[in-house]
Order: sequence, then structure tokens, then C-alpha cells
Amino acid sequence: MNKSEILNLLNDVATGATSVEKAADVLKAQPFDDLGFAKPDHHRGLRQGAGEVIYGAGKTPEQIIKITENLMQNGQKHILITRLDEQAYNSVSKSIELDYYKEARIGIAGGMPQPDTTGTILVITAGTSDIPVAEEAAVTAEFLGNNVKRVYDAGVAGIHRLLAHFDDISKADVIIAIAGMEGALASVVGGLADCPVIAVPTSVGYGASFGGVSALLSMLNSCASGVSVVNIDNGFGAAYTASMINHK
Amino acid sequence: MNKSEILNLLNDVATGATSVEKAADVLKAQPFDDLGFAKPDHHRGLRQGAGEVIYGAGKTPEQIIKITENLMQNGQKHILITRLDEQAYNSVSKSIELDYYKEARIGIAGGMPQPDTTGTILVITAGTSDIPVAEEAAVTAEFLGNNVKRVYDAGVAGIHRLLAHFDDISKADVIIAIAGMEGALASVVGGLADCPVIAVPTSVGYGASFGGVSALLSMLNSCASGVSVVNIDNGFGAAYTASMINHK
Amino acid sequence: MNKSEILNLLNDVATGATSVEKAADVLKAQPFDDLGFAKPDHHRGLRQGAGEVIYGAGKTPEQIIKITENLMQNGQKHILITRLDEQAYNSVSKSIELDYYKEARIGIAGGMPQPDTTGTILVITAGTSDIPVAEEAAVTAEFLGNNVKRVYDAGVAGIHRLLAHFDDISKADVIIAIAGMEGALASVVGGLADCPVIAVPTSVGYGASFGGVSALLSMLNSCASGVSVVNIDNGFGAAYTASMINHK
Amino acid sequence: MNKSEILNLLNDVATGATSVEKAADVLKAQPFDDLGFAKPDHHRGLRQGAGEVIYGAGKTPEQIIKITENLMQNGQKHILITRLDEQAYNSVSKSIELDYYKEARIGIAGGMPQPDTTGTILVITAGTSDIPVAEEAAVTAEFLGNNVKRVYDAGVAGIHRLLAHFDDISKADVIIAIAGMEGALASVVGGLADCPVIAVPTSVGYGASFGGVSALLSMLNSCASGVSVVNIDNGFGAAYTASMINHK
Amino acid sequence: MNKSEILNLLNDVATGATSVEKAADVLKAQPFDDLGFAKPDHHRGLRQGAGEVIYGAGKTPEQIIKITENLMQNGQKHILITRLDEQAYNSVSKSIELDYYKEARIGIAGGMPQPDTTGTILVITAGTSDIPVAEEAAVTAEFLGNNVKRVYDAGVAGIHRLLAHFDDISKADVIIAIAGMEGALASVVGGLADCPVIAVPTSVGYGASFGGVSALLSMLNSCASGVSVVNIDNGFGAAYTASMINHK
Amino acid sequence: MNKSEILNLLNDVATGATSVEKAADVLKAQPFDDLGFAKPDHHRGLRQGAGEVIYGAGKTPEQIIKITENLMQNGQKHILITRLDEQAYNSVSKSIELDYYKEARIGIAGGMPQPDTTGTILVITAGTSDIPVAEEAAVTAEFLGNNVKRVYDAGVAGIHRLLAHFDDISKADVIIAIAGMEGALASVVGGLADCPVIAVPTSVGYGASFGGVSALLSMLNSCASGVSVVNIDNGFGAAYTASMINHK
Amino acid sequence: MNKSEILNLLNDVATGATSVEKAADVLKAQPFDDLGFAKPDHHRGLRQGAGEVIYGAGKTPEQIIKITENLMQNGQKHILITRLDEQAYNSVSKSIELDYYKEARIGIAGGMPQPDTTGTILVITAGTSDIPVAEEAAVTAEFLGNNVKRVYDAGVAGIHRLLAHFDDISKADVIIAIAGMEGALASVVGGLADCPVIAVPTSVGYGASFGGVSALLSMLNSCASGVSVVNIDNGFGAAYTASMINHK
Amino acid sequence: MNKSEILNLLNDVATGATSVEKAADVLKAQPFDDLGFAKPDHHRGLRQGAGEVIYGAGKTPEQIIKITENLMQNGQKHILITRLDEQAYNSVSKSIELDYYKEARIGIAGGMPQPDTTGTILVITAGTSDIPVAEEAAVTAEFLGNNVKRVYDAGVAGIHRLLAHFDDISKADVIIAIAGMEGALASVVGGLADCPVIAVPTSVGYGASFGGVSALLSMLNSCASGVSVVNIDNGFGAAYTASMINHK
Repeated sequence: MNKSEILNLLNDVATGATSVEKAADVLKAQPFDDLGFAKPDHHRGLRQGAGEVIYGAGKTPEQIIKITENLMQNGQKHILITRLDEQAYNSVSKSIELDYYKEARIGIAGGMPQPDTTGTILVITAGTSDIPVAEEAAVTAEFLGNNVKRVYDAGVAGIHRLLAHFDDISKADVIIAIAGMEGALASVVGGLADCPVIAVPTSVGYGASFGGVSALLSMLNSCASGVSVVNIDNGFGAAYTASMINHK
Repeated sequence: MNKSEILNLLNDVATGATSVEKAADVLKAQPFDDLGFAKPDHHRGLRQGAGEVIYGAGKTPEQIIKITENLMQNGQKHILITRLDEQAYNSVSKSIELDYYKEARIGIAGGMPQPDTTGTILVITAGTSDIPVAEEAAVTAEFLGNNVKRVYDAGVAGIHRLLAHFDDISKADVIIAIAGMEGALASVVGGLADCPVIAVPTSVGYGASFGGVSALLSMLNSCASGVSVVNIDNGFGAAYTASMINHK
Repeated sequence: MNKSEILNLLNDVATGATSVEKAADVLKAQPFDDLGFAKPDHHRGLRQGAGEVIYGAGKTPEQIIKITENLMQNGQKHILITRLDEQAYNSVSKSIELDYYKEARIGIAGGMPQPDTTGTILVITAGTSDIPVAEEAAVTAEFLGNNVKRVYDAGVAGIHRLLAHFDDISKADVIIAIAGMEGALASVVGGLADCPVIAVPTSVGYGASFGGVSALLSMLNSCASGVSVVNIDNGFGAAYTASMINHK
Repeated sequence: MNKSEILNLLNDVATGATSVEKAADVLKAQPFDDLGFAKPDHHRGLRQGAGEVIYGAGKTPEQIIKITENLMQNGQKHILITRLDEQAYNSVSKSIELDYYKEARIGIAGGMPQPDTTGTILVITAGTSDIPVAEEAAVTAEFLGNNVKRVYDAGVAGIHRLLAHFDDISKADVIIAIAGMEGALASVVGGLADCPVIAVPTSVGYGASFGGVSALLSMLNSCASGVSVVNIDNGFGAAYTASMINHK
Repeated sequence: MNKSEILNLLNDVATGATSVEKAADVLKAQPFDDLGFAKPDHHRGLRQGAGEVIYGAGKTPEQIIKITENLMQNGQKHILITRLDEQAYNSVSKSIELDYYKEARIGIAGGMPQPDTTGTILVITAGTSDIPVAEEAAVTAEFLGNNVKRVYDAGVAGIHRLLAHFDDISKADVIIAIAGMEGALASVVGGLADCPVIAVPTSVGYGASFGGVSALLSMLNSCASGVSVVNIDNGFGAAYTASMINHK
Repeated sequence: MNKSEILNLLNDVATGATSVEKAADVLKAQPFDDLGFAKPDHHRGLRQGAGEVIYGAGKTPEQIIKITENLMQNGQKHILITRLDEQAYNSVSKSIELDYYKEARIGIAGGMPQPDTTGTILVITAGTSDIPVAEEAAVTAEFLGNNVKRVYDAGVAGIHRLLAHFDDISKADVIIAIAGMEGALASVVGGLADCPVIAVPTSVGYGASFGGVSALLSMLNSCASGVSVVNIDNGFGAAYTASMINHK
Repeated sequence: MNKSEILNLLNDVATGATSVEKAADVLKAQPFDDLGFAKPDHHRGLRQGAGEVIYGAGKTPEQIIKITENLMQNGQKHILITRLDEQAYNSVSKSIELDYYKEARIGIAGGMPQPDTTGTILVITAGTSDIPVAEEAAVTAEFLGNNVKRVYDAGVAGIHRLLAHFDDISKADVIIAIAGMEGALASVVGGLADCPVIAVPTSVGYGASFGGVSALLSMLNSCASGVSVVNIDNGFGAAYTASMINHK
Repeated sequence: MNKSEILNLLNDVATGATSVEKAADVLKAQPFDDLGFAKPDHHRGLRQGAGEVIYGAGKTPEQIIKITENLMQNGQKHILITRLDEQAYNSVSKSIELDYYKEARIGIAGGMPQPDTTGTILVITAGTSDIPVAEEAAVTAEFLGNNVKRVYDAGVAGIHRLLAHFDDISKADVIIAIAGMEGALASVVGGLADCPVIAVPTSVGYGASFGGVSALLSMLNSCASGVSVVNIDNGFGAAYTASMINHK
């Protein structure tokens, strides 16, 4: 049951098309009601698209298995599990068949869906250490039905490496720019691109990078227009927003 | 001369279609070269759309006048001047005819352009004190060719006031959610909306709001997917990004 | 010996009803004097209600055992031990019979007391990861004689899940609202409720949540009236305050 | 129209007792709909008790006058205007008769209501510089129908001055403890009191007090149980919560 | 060779009483020159009193052994080794006979010196978790020749426990007040005492205590006169300063 | 009435030597009870020495006059008023004869007392901009009966200027080291001195000095033993502590 | 008297070539001894080069005049006064003939010296608002005998504007890169340049730029090698370091 | 292929001396293109000097081996691997012969190059705990062809230890000053030296040193001219800049 269905239901109650009691029954039958004391986090209403998402951090393998099974029984064909480290993957995969994307720390049940748009999301990083966050973004974007182009280790200190990807930047429909340390990539890419840029600061760095704060502030203060920012290391969130834009 | 023209020029140089000397001449003829010692800030390549933008903060009225005249002489029909306080407006308007949007602190030379898209950007605020930032966003979005719907003072503490705007939220193509204090509006709207939400923290508040930091952190940590964030009080930046999305 | 007894004693000294020497003897006979060099922390005067509390963090199992035995020998029937991790529980339970609430990290000696009020404390969380803090609050509140209603994973990004608990919110006498990340739950619940809301920020989140600071600031800046805040992850403190209010 | 009336209305819509159209008409007739572009901030649903509240900060005298007149025309008898500096008071009082509490920066239209409870709220400060915040709390509490006892300049560095108020502390039903600088008052009072303590950090101090942060952190980390905290300088919020507790 | 000897040497050079070459020879014979590449940290010139100090943190057992032996060979009778955890103690004690103070994490070679003053330093803590820092202070103060009185777990939330030590506070020549969490102890003791109070914030606490920052700010902002502050957890530094004062 | 007199009174009550009623009368006759609603801040119990202190910040000239007159009527001969800016001085001096120390922002009624100790307090600053804080310290120390030696503008970047004051540093009984910017003076002086050093960070500086935070952190982390720290710009507090030490 | 002369003097004392008394006389005759109570800040030993520097911030016009006159009487031919705002300039210039550089807020007595090196310092800024800091750097560098090339408003968001200055970057001997907001200029320039880059963060920006902190962190975390950083807005310090490098 | 070669190539393309296709082929043959998905970080263009650098942090031993082999196959004779902990060294050294500098955490393949300049870089630390950072700087500087002089444990609290190195400070061409805690070393050395000082804050310390922030702020606010700063613990970066200066 996706978000607009829920809103419609609330509307139907308001117009009298549905009684309160009936609506309550419908809502109670929703997956978020089924697992009792430890309700699964369905990544909040993310049910409208190609599949379903489980945020794996802070969940036991048992909880992840239960939620996945519950979703599959409710007809979900593709399920994305984020922040699933290798140890958790090993446990979960004993019960459920998963494609595991190790660098992205993502498991997918039911296989990767086919792209359902023609636009392309460019995922670009400043360094190699940013790749885990980039892969979380790239795999999520693919799961949500997008074509993804990856360009990694194209930091601004070697501007020739970045300029070599002019074409990719020009042709992208949305760009996810990922960088730790000083996070300058977002501004330079933002200055070159004609499309929206979602900037993802990463916790890559040491000392005065303060776990990603330096890159975060850089990106928020970007002198380039068209740049908006998500939380540190939030590859999933960037991909979700980028997919929304790409599906317009 | 817009950004893709500049990139094409660089490309032509690379392919030999244009000589370096000629390209240099072309670039020197660009407006950013004309005003000598105190070069105007043309809001970075924002020349492709309906008009041109001048970031007024930190510029003297004389500088604003010179840049505006220079732009008009170069064929710009509509020019947006942001962060133009009333005193500066009074000075500038002696030389240049401006429409002044007082709450937005925006002046427009050459009149407001007509919308060139059918999509709608919803600008929604938590409180009345957020309105100046909201108006900066709304007027900018209109200037960039968008239809804008305003909903003000719909903070989450009075959830009925927000729910009363279900329709506006459902129908929007992009939403700009603006809030100070605890910034919860972004999460609630993000949970209700199916479109991208650009969150703008404002410096409204006191004490532990720390000039907008509280709202900024809230928005970056939003549990709702599809929310990205711009700098504190950056109504212009939110509108620019929203317009990019709305024009896709 | 409870707090008002101590104050009365001081008063008796002042009025001459008790001599200084005698008062000193009485005070020296108090449990806080008995365990020598490493005095137990009796959670400061929390002796007036249904039982006694030991703050387990930073205490060795041996210290916890000694304090518990000392309390029981002094007539305490029910003793709550907070921040007692499983390993410490295993050690302590070899000497003292404990009911262990694993998620709450609480051990209770002498069994859970019966409720002594009719009012209800609602403990509500934004996500599943907030449950350990919520259980610390809920078990503490029960120990202090309150009826407790739990509603978990009702974050604002899925507003329908929260609205489904209108009834619980309306009927509560006090609400403990627990959330990490952006902490918006406190404001939304505060806007819906007619009773005092004690907000507990949790350290759940990553990146710019800064170990609970984001939620803490949100809650302090809540636009809803009637919300007050305790320390990050301080389920016990919220329950103690809520119980005080509920017993009025 | 108070909060439970609004919720009832929503409920009536859901049960069909009221049609959506009729409900919309009712909601549109609400004061928050009446003033157009610059909607007044009604301090969020604070309409259930003895009177109405307007948060004056960031509003022009004209806006305050319009909102006050609108409220009075809608039958409000007593209206509290907070954060009303003397200059604004002078402007507003030309149109509306106000009792002005200068230190509290509060204006009251329609006179101060009579107390409607028997319990007492103790407002206690560490220093004289904390008095403006204390008066905001005290006058608000009185406006909301409470008996208020003031004890000012009773900081912990002169413990005898604080101990001299044992009686007031013992007899209070709720205590609002207000302090800047190191904010130790909350812990000492919290240790002496048997009732809930609402702690208000103030921005009084200099240097490493960081505009109230030092006191805020002290209060959040209070070793005394039963202490909860509101935003820096938020006398109104403390009084609102205290009144809720006192009216139980 | 103590500090005044070094300064005298420099002075003798200046007056010609000593030649530069001779002075250089003397300085080269100093212990800080002897151990080559990894020069020992002699706790900076702390050689004038009852004994010598080695700051153990960040030194290998081998380095500590070498420095200790070198000092003993140069005639030092008593040597204090701070921040010496149990594992390091076990290694060092195989080569050098040490008295080990486990809670203080201090080892002493050559035995504890006798007191050489009549004044008393009071070491007082707010809680039991502050005891390790307190013991570092107390043992250091004893090593430096002072009489020490310990009062532990006398936090301000149980003011009767603190008032019970009026006598100790009145009679002290210097007080070291140690507290984590909100650090209010320093202000209350400072208000009661007639002698200098050295306040030591500790990293005891969680959440918004930020590793001792809350207590540090409280102590710096103390409303009590006569309070000065050292670094978080710096029991040694407090004792060193207190000893300087006590030996006046 | 000084602090020990107050404590004796409390003791007399406890032993029955004084009745509670009589003690209450005595306490009510104390100056802190006399001035009603806006009780004067007597700088907390600072009554034992050569004179009385009024903290002028945040007080109106009228309040300062009333408190000063009240103190003089109660027999105080010398009264120190700190943080008294020139405008306030002009107002106060119309009613009360004051010696005004402009740089120190201190007014003294009843004249400067004679020194009552033989020891010397050295007040040393890194730069000229630190002089106002230094003068607050120096004049306070003189008022409290100490001999004061001033050495200004002796920052560590010109080490020869500092070394030129070896003698002053060697002979001092207590040193107050005052510096903004990087605050290194405290460590260098602390390494040279044999007496306690009270370090005062100042808000002198710009950019990353963060209003004194840089100097504050430097001083707290001083590698020199014997250094303790007071609040930013707190010349009074440093002098008060230094005087306590100097009077031992 | 320059720094090496002072060190030589100290050395002569040490070798007996100069007596202590004579050295003391020489040192007392130094300019830093002459102006009594308010000693001038000679910008610490900056006497070896083309001229002398006075840091004007926090000095009265009278003090600046006295120091300048004193320096001129001691044979200084060129004197640079930094942080001299227009109002102070107007006062000072009544007594002393000054060349005033308004944007740089610098006054020069005795005229600008001729360059004494062949190398060039490139001063480059991201925006027009950074120009005051850039001019402070440029004028200082010229005063210290360097050739200076200015490139302003070449921020990374318009990479073509920066690339247009390839030549200047390649030919520079030292580069001073100045930027506010996200400070990305330093990394991009650092990646292009073969010479040392001194990065100057500026306080230009708003919201999450936090007065230059964002740019400061960016520059400290620069992924480009060869970049070092000075304080926010410290154009003078950058020029001083750059001049040292350029004079090697 | 070094940086100027890359820039020349770009220039040749622009002038037509090289076709775009040919340039693309050249660029594709560059080492940064060779290793596919996980592109090695070549420490950005640091290829012009005596050897090549690999930043080891965040790379697996396998990745380091592949990159090193690739570089050697491309003709690099000397390769520096930074941030290579002992465990990683053990793995890498099975495939590649390395000289390992344990304290510096640096491995060098192909042996240490000979110095190619006559100037000297002085590496000086405040304490022994700063030595790992110092060794990273010293070994890097040696690798880049510089003569290096080490002076360790010369903190300002024992000023005689620092003054004993006057000669080293006077004779240095560049100084790298390394300190944790309060970082005062940079200011004192900066005041003594006539050459540029690169200051490196270290994370050495505890409590309010905040992982190097205290030293970082001290160094940024240094009152000595000629001091610039790199990131916390960034010995490599300091050495790289120092080498650039030393090779001028």
C-alpha cells in the first residue's frame, strides 16, 4: 500500500466514502502493523516505486529476516536492504536469497529491477575512499529504476581528471557529487552542470574534517547554484531524491 | 553568453575550430571582464534562463547600478537583484527602474517574466517569521519562470493547519519547505509529499536555535526520504534548485 | 530515610528539638555512610516512593551487589538497577535474584511494584532504534507505580502511523516522546497533546546527528508549548519526572 | 476554538457527523485564517485556558494590533502578548488598552485573569540579571491561572540565601528554576524539592557562558532527578509547562 | 637540577660568572639530554620538590623504565609515575619496585615521601565515578608533601551530604573540587569555602555532558569567587597547583 | 556580616545558642534582604576582606547607587564596583564620590585601601589590547590589599621582551597571566615561574580566536604545571583567587 | 633594531662581550620600551625588512600617532599601519602624512618602498566580497618588497574564469588564495600550482559559513598538497609568510 | 607524467599543437586510469620530484601492492607510502621490498633518494608524543630531497630546552613546528625564527584538547608572523609545503 493510497483512504474517510471502522481495519492490515513490539522501519512510505526498502542499521538479522519475509508475503517483488554489513548479510542470507553488493553494504531480495526511465544519474566522487557511499547511492538509484553512470576519484586537486569527464557532467539528468575532506567537488561540478546536483559529504578525512563536518559545511556554502545537500554519508538519501527528480 | 556557450567555446578551442587568441577575445568581451578592479558577481553562469541575477549583499548601490546597466546594454531583459535592502533599493531606483519586493528584499529590472512551465512549486513555511526567506524563494522561482503556490504559517505544532493543505502538497511538482526553530516541517511535509522537497532552515528562533543550526541539523537528519537541504536562509538557492527540477 | 525526613531532621536541629550530636548520629547511620571508601550512588534522595534506584553505569558488579544487599538489609523491598548491561546482570544475578529487562538494561530486585496511580504515561518513539531508551523509561515508570502505554515506531515521516494513535495521545496524563535523528516527534506530539510532554533525544542517527545533538536542539526549540527536555538517552530521568507529574 | 474542539471536528468528519465542506467552512472561520498574507502566530493552539497568547517577537505593532482586535472580536477576554518591548508597547497601547509588565516584556489586554487553581508555582532565580526571564515566566503563569511565588537572587554560591527558602521549595507544586552562568541552581533545587522542576537557562553571563550554553548543558546534565529543561531564556515555555502540571 | 638552578646558570652566563661553554656542558649533562632520540618527558621542570614526576601516558613500559632508572641514578629518591594503567604497571614492576595506587593509576618508586607542610588539601567529589580523578589528585598531593583529606560522593543534589562536611570545607587550606555531569559542586563549595578552590571537571556523564565539556563550562562560569579551573580529568594538575598554594 | 559570621549563626541555631526566630531576624537585617524586588548582587559573600564588591554589569545606575548607599550605611568603608562603564560612572558619580579607573572600568567608593600583605601579585599581559582585563585584575588585587606589579605587552612572539622580566617572574608570589589570541603566555610563564599562575584568556583577537575560546583552550591544555584558569576576560575572578593565595 | 641584533646582543652578554648592565641599557633604549603604560605593538620583531608595521586594531588614533612618530624618530623610513579604518585614518592623517589604501584599510607613512625581489606573489580571490582581505594581503606584500599580481572574482563555480588565469598561476612564485563561503578555491588552485599556496579563509558568507569557519575547515582539509592556512581574514599574515618565501 | 606536463598538454590542445583525440589517448595512458573501478589516489600530481607518493590510509594491502607495482612498471624509482601501519606493512612487504619507518608509519619502495638541495628543514616538537607526526614529516621531507634536522621534546614550558636550540632555529631554511595540547611552540619558534614556520597541530592531549582543536586554534591565532598551519597530525602536508619552499 503506497503513500497516495493511504492519503486517499484518509480522504475517503473524510468524505464518508469509507467508514472509520473500515479504514481502521485497512490500516491495521498494513505491514507496519504486523510485527508487533519491534515494528520494522519501512523507510517511511517508500512503497510507491519499483520495490521496498529496509534500513538495516540497528536491526538484528532476525528482525531483517522477519520484515523481509513479511514484505514478500505481502507481494513485494524487490526489496532493498541498506547498511547491511557483511556479517549481517551472512546471517540473513541463510534464510533469504540475496544479491549482495559488498562495497555498497546493500542486499537485494528478488533481484535488481530493470530501469524504468531513460534519464541518467551521474554518481561522481572526489576520492577512492568515498566509493562505499557512492556505491550505496548508485545501487539504490539502480534499484529505484534509474540508469547510473559512475565516475570515481575525480577530485578537484587534479582538475584534469575532472575536466576529462565534461561529457558525463553535461549529459547527466541529475548528479550526485560525493566528497569528504574539503568537499570542493560539489562546487566545481555545480559550476559545470546544468542539472540539479545532490551533494553528499562523507566522513572521509582526519583531524579538522571532524567526521564529515568540513565537507558538509563546504557543500552548504557552495557558491554554485543548483546544489542541495543531504546528511553525511547518506548515499541512500541522495539516490532517493535523485531518483525522484529523474522520474519527473 | 550562457554556460553551454562557454563550454562549447572551450571545446572549439580544443578541436581547433577556434584559435586561442580568438577565444581569448571572446572571453574578454564577456560581461564578467568589463567592470575592472571590482568585477561584478553574475551569480555564476546563471544566464541560461529567463533572466540574470545579481547577488546584492556586500555590493554598493553604485556597483549594483553599473552591473545592471552593463547587463542591460548586453541585451538582458530581466534582471533579478537579491538581498537588496530598502535603503539600497532607494539608491538604486534613482538610476534604474525597479519593481521592488520588500519582504523578499528583491528588486527586478525589466519586469517579472511570464511562467514558462506548467508545473508548480509550493513554498511552505512553519511560521510567519519565515516569510522573508519564503518570499525570496517565491519571487526568485517566479522570476525563473515557475508557477508558485504560497502556504505560510503551517507549522507542525498545529498539525490541523498543515493537514488543511494536503491538496497543495499532493499537487506540487517541487516543494520548498522553510522553517526555523526545530525545523520539523521538512520531515512532516517530506513524509506527505511524493515530490522532491528542498528544505530551507531559517535563522528564526532564539537561544539554542543558534542562528538556524537547530533547524539545519533537523533537516539534514530528516527521517523522510526525498528531502535535501540548502544553507540557512538561502531562499534564492532553494528556488534555483527547485526551478531546475521543475523545468525538467 | 527519605528526603523530607532529612529536611525535618535539619529543621529539628534548628528548633532545638534535636541536638546537633544526635542529628549527626542519625545522619551517620544513613545508608550513604555505610559502604566506606567507595560510597554507592543512591540516585540522590530518590527514596520516597515505591522503591530504591541504583545507577549501574560505572559500578562494578561487586559494588552493585554490596549496595543492593545494604539496601535490602535496610528494609527496601523493591530496588531498580539502571544501565545494567547483560554481562553485569549475569554477575550480579549470581548473588541477588533479579528480574532482568534486557532491552531496558534494567534489573529489579524484589519484583515490580504494583501501580499506585490511575493516570497513564504514554511512552512513544519515532523509530525502532529508540526502543532501548523507551524501555528504560517505561520500566522505570512502571517501577515508580505508573500505568504505562507504549507506542513505538510512530515517526512523523509516516504521519498516518502517528495519527493512528490520536486516542493514546489524547488520553495520556503525561507523554514521554522519544526520538533521535531530527527529533520532530516532540513537536508534532506536543501540538496534539493537552498534557505535559517530556522529550527525550536519543543518540540514534549518524553523520550530522552528532550523537543526539540534532534531536536535542530540535526538542529545545520545539514550536509546541508544553514540551520540556531531558538529557540525550535519559529514559530514566524522563520517567522520573513523568512519574512526579502523574502522581500529582 | 480550542484544540480538542478541532480534533473533535476532524473526528466528526471521519465519522460522517460533519461533512467535509462544512468542516472546511468552520476551519476557514478560525482566526488563523482571517488575516491573509501575514497570518498571526497564535502560539499554536494555546486557546483552551484562561486566555489567548500572541508571541510578539518579529511582529510589527500593526500586526499585533490586528491580531489582538481579531481575537477580541472573536470573544477572547484576556490576551497575553509576550516579547513586547517598551517601544512596541507604546505603539500598540495607542490602539489597545494594555496592562504592561515592563520587566517581563509582557502586555495583557483584558486584564489579568483570576487564579483558577490552588497549587503554587515557585519561580526562583540565581541572580538579579535573571529577573526579566523570571518575570516572563511568573506573569505568564499568573495569566494561565496559577498562584505564583517569586524568590529572586538565591544563587548557590550563597547557599544560606537559598536555604532560607526551604519552606517555599517544600511547599511548591511546581518549581521554575532560572539561572545563567553555570546554572547550578537547578541541581541544588532539584535535590531539595519533591515536585517537578522546570529549569530555564538564561543568556546571562559572559565569555565561556556562550549565550546560555553553559547553563543549558548544566541543567541537561543535572544530577538531580525530576529536572527537565526548556530553551534558553524561555520563561514563557517554562510557565506553560508548569501550568499544565499545576492544573492536573 | 631544579628550575631555579637552571635560571641561575643562565644568569651566571649573563654575568660572566660562567662561560658559555661550561654552561653548555652542564646543560648537556642534564637528564633531559641523556636518553637520545626518544627524550623522556620530565613533566617540565617539576624537580624542585619532594620528588620527580613522569607522565606515563603515551610512553612504553621500556621508556618508563629507562627514565626511572636514569632519574634514580641521578639521585632522585622518590619518583611519581602518573597515568600508569595496570598493564603498564605489571610490565614496569618487573624491573623497578613500585607502590601502585590502582584507582589513581599512579606508581611510586622509592616510596611515598612524608608530608612537609601542616596545611591540608581537601579533595572532594560529586560522585563515585569521579574517584579515579580524585585519587590521582590525592596521591599526587600526598607525594608532593601535603596532608590530604578525602570526601567522596558529596554531590549537590543531596545537599545534606555536602553540608555534613562543613567542617572539612572550613578547615581546608586549599580545596580540589571534582565533578562531572553539571559540575555544580565547584560553585557550592566555592560559596562555602574561604580558601582557593581548584575545580576539576571530569568526563563522567553521557549525552550532553560531551566528555566533560558541560562540567568544564559550569566551573569556568562559576558564580562563586575564588574558583579556578584545570583541564578535564586533570587530577595531577589540580594537585600540583594546590600543593604550590599549600606550601606558601 | 561576613561568611564565617553567617555560618556561625547557622551553627548557633543548630546548638540552640540562637533561636530560629532571632536568627531569621538577623538574616533579614542583612543587606541582601534590604532592597526588595531587585535584590543587589553582593558578589556573593565577598565581605570578609578590605571591602565590598558590586558587580556593575546589568545593573542600572540607580540600582548601583542604592546598593552602594546601603552598604555605606551598614558600615562598609571601601566599595569596589566592577564592570562600570564610563557612562554609568558619570551617572553614579553624581550621587556618590568615586575614584574611577577608566581602563579597568572600576569605580571605588571610600578610596583604595592600603596593602595588608607583603607578597606581590604580578599581572602580565601578552599584548596591549589585553590591558583592560589586566587593569580589572590589578585594581581589584590592590583593592583586596595586595601589592601589584604590572608588566604589559610581553607576548611570547618577542621572547626577549618576556625574558627581560625574569626577575619579576621569579620574585612574584602569584602571577596573573593574561592573553588573547593563542594564549601561549600562560605556558611560557608557567614554565618559568615557581609560584601559582592564574591564567586569564581574553576575547582579544579575530577570526578563529572565537571570542577568547582559542586562548581558553590553550590555557586549559597548558603543558606547564601550576597553571589554573578562569573565565574569558575575568580579571576580577583571577585577582580574587590570586589575593586568596597571596594572603595565605 | 632587528631580531638578529637582539639575539646577537643576548649572545654577547653570554660570551661576556657585553656586560649585563650595558645590554640592559641597550634594550631599554629600544622602541618597545619608550611609550610607557600603553606599549605599542610593533607587530613583533618585524623590523628586519623594508619597513615597520603597526597593527592598528584596538589602538586609539593617539596611540597610533605616538608609535608612528616614535618609529620615525628612530629612523624608520616606511611604516605600515594595518586595520586602520577610515575614521581612524582621518584622525591620524591630521598629524602624520599617510598614503591610505581604503579597501585594504592600510595606511603607509613614508611612502611605498620599491620591490626588492624579482619573484611574484599572486593574490587571487573567489569573489568580489573577498577583496578587502585580498587588498590587505596585496598592499602588505608590496610594502614588504614584492611584486604582486591580483586576480579577483575567480571562484570555482565559474571554472572558466579560473582557467583563464592558468598563466598567472603557473608563473607565480607564491600564491595567496582567498575565499569565503566554501573556500574551494584553495584546493583547485593548489592542484594547478607548482608553488606554495597560502590559503586565507574569509568571513564572507552567511548562515552555515559561521563567520569563516566553513572556509577555514575546507582549506585545512584541502586534498591538494602544498597548501597551508592562516587565520580567517588574515591578509596581513598571509602576505608576511608569502614574502618570507618569495625572498628566499 | 608530472603536473606541468599535463598542463602543457592541455595547452597544446588549445593551440592545436595536439589534437583532442591524441591528448585523450595520452591522458588515458596515465597511471590514474589504469586500475579500473578502484582508482589509486596518486596524492594528486605529486609526481614532479624525486619520487611518487601513495596515501595508505583507507586502502587495502592488495590495493597498495597493485598501485606500487603499477608505478614501478611505469618507471617510478622511489615510492613513498604514508599512513602505513605495521600490520599493513607486513602484508605489503611480502610482495614488495620496502624500507619501513615504524614511528613515521611510512614505507619506501626503491630506497630513500639522496638530498637534492642544500637548505635544511628543521622539524621540532613540543613533546615526545608528537614524534610520530614529526617522523612522518621528517621522512617525507627527506624523501622529497631535503636535509632534515630533528629537535624533539622542546616544549615551551621548559624554555631552557628550547633556547638551547637557538642555533638550529637560526640556521633553518624552513621550520616545521609540531605540538599538541596548547600548541604554543609555534608562536615561540615563530618569534625566534627568520624563516617560514609550518605549524602542525597534533591530536596529542586529553580533555579540552579536543583531538587537536586546541593546538589548531592556537596556531591559527599565533601572534608571531610567518606562521601558517596545516591539518591536525598532517606531517606529510607540512613536509610537502616545506619542501616546496626549501627548493625555491
